[in-house]
Amino acid sequence: MEIWFSQMDTENVKTSVRVDRQLFSRQSEYQRINVFESREFGRMIVLDGEIIFSEADEFIYNEMVVHVPMAVHPCVKNVLIIGGGDGGVAKVLTQYPEIEAIDVVEPDEMFIEVSREFFPETARGFDDDRVKITNMDGLRFLRRCRDKYDLIINDSTDPFGHTEGLFTREFYGNCYRALHDDGIMVYQHGSPFYDEDEAAFRAMHRKAYQSFPVSRVYQASIPTCPAGIWMFGFASKKYHPLKDFDAQRWNERQLETWYYTTHLHKGAFMLPKYVEDILSEEEMKK
Amino acid sequence: MEIWFSQMDTENVKTSVRVDRQLFSRQSEYQRINVFESREFGRMIVLDGEIIFSEADEFIYNEMVVHVPMAVHPCVKNVLIIGGGDGGVAKVLTQYPEIEAIDVVEPDEMFIEVSREFFPETARGFDDDRVKITNMDGLRFLRRCRDKYDLIINDSTDPFGHTEGLFTREFYGNCYRALHDDGIMVYQHGSPFYDEDEAAFRAMHRKAYQSFPVSRVYQASIPTCPAGIWMFGFASKKYHPLKDFDAQRWNERQLETWYYTTHLHKGAFMLPKYVEDILSEEEMKK
Repeated sequence: MEIWFSQMDTENVKTSVRVDRQLFSRQSEYQRINVFESREFGRMIVLDGEIIFSEADEFIYNEMVVHVPMAVHPCVKNVLIIGGGDGGVAKVLTQYPEIEAIDVVEPDEMFIEVSREFFPETARGFDDDRVKITNMDGLRFLRRCRDKYDLIINDSTDPFGHTEGLFTREFYGNCYRALHDDGIMVYQHGSPFYDEDEAAFRAMHRKAYQSFPVSRVYQASIPTCPAGIWMFGFASKKYHPLKDFDAQRWNERQLETWYYTTHLHKGAFMLPKYVEDILSEEEMKK
Repeated sequence: MEIWFSQMDTENVKTSVRVDRQLFSRQSEYQRINVFESREFGRMIVLDGEIIFSEADEFIYNEMVVHVPMAVHPCVKNVLIIGGGDGGVAKVLTQYPEIEAIDVVEPDEMFIEVSREFFPETARGFDDDRVKITNMDGLRFLRRCRDKYDLIINDSTDPFGHTEGLFTREFYGNCYRALHDDGIMVYQHGSPFYDEDEAAFRAMHRKAYQSFPVSRVYQASIPTCPAGIWMFGFASKKYHPLKDFDAQRWNERQLETWYYTTHLHKGAFMLPKYVEDILSEEEMKK
């Protein structure tokens, strides 16, 4: 018998993964949560049909959203993770001793429980004393925050469905207000390749570019993402991701990584021409 | 009715593309050749089950194997393309006026005929007066070449099947001999992510590293490639892909591109840590 899980990358392209068994399947208040055991990617969490986390490639995403801003900002003490129910981002952040507090704002309690049960190695990011989990919608949480964080990481899934509010202009404005004067925000920028993703990609850059003085985009190759290419936004009140990047200081930390290096940090901001063109076009718009 | 073509990225992962119709399907002397019309990628050539060429993403591959060496070598006059039956690499090369001769050595005549029939826009690369097609095995062709080329591009498909000989130590040695004293060789290095591709990836770097004084690897994000990440080898007798890279000279050409930029050129050589580690390990071996 063969079981294949398929992710619809677009209406016309799908990525299928051979699955040994389905370990969990339930509808939470927010989304359909599935956990599969696969041969190629190990265990995977699938939310509403999309692979959100796989044991084989989660390191790429988690390292890229954490180490890039951490190698730029000189002293991060307070971090907010919006989403982050799997604990992977929190786990990488806890490697930094100077961080004093990590707020994880994940509305879906069941997602966190599932992560703790099936991915204990990753979810142990939650066990660090500095981590505080709040089960609340990210946009609502942000409305009451002022001048509180050095770094905000938007680890939420998609500009559609229940996380839609996390991709609005109001959201970027609220993040801006919640950050200190030299704060940085990193957010998922999606995959720029397929036509059906392009409008969301453009809108995201336009909103961030209009909300923050510094707004750059960087990339990583993530096999389980549509087209294998994923983009991240780096929006900042003060620091530039390359001009204020301190490779030596970061290397002296001697953190173990599998994807990130300080060379790759620079390379990640050097984008394909078709992506640069999209970004420039949006920057011209008022 | 739905028709889906599936490419097995590994035994346990497949990429499937919705297909409107199959335009061609025949066994040549060398391989099974299929042409499909798809919604997401336009027309695609599939050789022995692998997408070799799609209208939607061919630009990435072709630009990266041509512009990277052309922006490094100060004066390329004679080029050899091994494989290249679709004409895409030749087409990009013909944009350079200083090139005097382009030898295309593709054993499979049927592959060339299919390209001319179904991809005339790409195959017009063959119509340039400087292009000469030889239907012969690349390794046999190379055995009689000495000190003849400034640039060799190995555009053949795979280290398996009928092109296996193009990934042997003898092949790299023959390329070395066929190049002028300042010649460059660019070759497909495959996808480094999946375990089943790692041995071939390692072997390729070991052979090139032992055959050439300069041997570096660079990357591109290509949606139809396994895991969406593809690597290229840059092996050279003299020029370094970054130290001898002349961005200004290349930009003054004002060539139109959709993927390559001189920024991206540099970024493409900044590799994920897991790839750097594999390469260093092979470089330590005798």
